[in-house]
Amino acid sequence: MIERNYVKRISSEELISSVKFNSDGLVPTIIQDRDTSAVLMMAWMNRESLDMTLESGRTWFWSRSRSTLWPKGETSGEIQLVRQVSVDCDGDTLLIEVDQQGGGACHTGSYSCFYRGVEVKGEQAHDGSE
Amino acid sequence: MIERNYVKRISSEELISSVKFNSDGLVPTIIQDRDTSAVLMMAWMNRESLDMTLESGRTWFWSRSRSTLWPKGETSGEIQLVRQVSVDCDGDTLLIEVDQQGGGACHTGSYSCFYRGVEVKGEQAHDGSE
Repeated sequence: MIERNYVKRISSEELISSVKFNSDGLVPTIIQDRDTSAVLMMAWMNRESLDMTLESGRTWFWSRSRSTLWPKGETSGEIQLVRQVSVDCDGDTLLIEVDQQGGGACHTGSYSCFYRGVEVKGEQAHDGSE
Repeated sequence: MIERNYVKRISSEELISSVKFNSDGLVPTIIQDRDTSAVLMMAWMNRESLDMTLESGRTWFWSRSRSTLWPKGETSGEIQLVRQVSVDCDGDTLLIEVDQQGGGACHTGSYSCFYRGVEVKGEQAHDGSE
């Protein structure tokens, strides 16, 4: 589980008032597995889906392609039980830690949507760890 | 360190051709600390900053407010050494695992930009872990 002892607890009202929705009324939302710490997906929320997420304890998103609210896992059973909702310094991105149910978060069947990657072997750290 | 054995290795060329930049030529990019697994920040890349990130092994972003390329940590020393760049299933978000140098990623001095959060205690998991 993620050590996140630098997070200051705020209320739902403070969170909501901190969010700066973009010109389409949306905010990008990163979903992270609380257990494995993997980043599972990124999706968009509007004000209503954020309210529904905080109230229901399950993730709700806004589908830009279908212009509709979208309850994650409604058909697949791969719902996300919400544990923490954080907002970034300038209020334009959310991070939600979840207990992912089912096999994963991706519609392709992958555990995470980020299943293709390039390894970069560049400069090494100078912190004594190398 | 994150267990990410579900990631399929692709080439830089495959990665770049998989990315769908938005109508402004940008893609949201999540930065994760490879060591602690914390999500540090989200920023935007254009094609040029992605190229520069892959070539230099350090993160470069596009500043939407200043309309300029932006090398992370140039002035603060809090550079990010890139270890893996992943693209999501539909190509519209990047995830970069880094070795964060210095005290953290946030311009406020916080380790992560996501330092304010609401704890949500809702439904419990049905996977036997509770």
